[in-house]
Amino acid sequence: MSEAEKNRITVDIYGQHYTIVGTEAPDTIRFVCSKVDDKMREINSANPYIDTGRLAVLTAVNAVNDYIKLQEKYEDLERQIKQLKD
Amino acid sequence: MSEAEKNRITVDIYGQHYTIVGTEAPDTIRFVCSKVDDKMREINSANPYIDTGRLAVLTAVNAVNDYIKLQEKYEDLERQIKQLKD
Repeated sequence: MSEAEKNRITVDIYGQHYTIVGTEAPDTIRFVCSKVDDKMREINSANPYIDTGRLAVLTAVNAVNDYIKLQEKYEDLERQIKQLKD
Repeated sequence: MSEAEKNRITVDIYGQHYTIVGTEAPDTIRFVCSKVDDKMREINSANPYIDTGRLAVLTAVNAVNDYIKLQEKYEDLERQIKQLKD
């Protein structure tokens, strides 16, 4: 299988079926989707009356926030490596 | 303001109002939400007939996938730093 070949995976997230197409391995796609499902349930337990669309948007906000925080830590490590190499 | 104090920000994401509560700075929260809005519009342009709830779930899948890929790169850098320090 070439690296660029796309996988087509059917997953369940928060009780709905989704067909996800991506170059990642099927197990990676399933893992990512299970993380989204977990996060939606976690946010729902704190906001029980929220509708699914808004819950999913807040889940995306949460994930992008985590990404940006990790990106800052990543840039710190890059600076550290540069100093160690200089 | 103590570090633990929470900010309460009203933002617009994909035409809906959200009140986001978090310890991050208001500008950071707004930046994160604008990224989610951008990503939803990008995914929508590739899937024009998708409903908003499913679009938001796919946006969350996308964000968590980006996070996991960055986490792998972060762990690589940590290993590199360890080797440089040893």
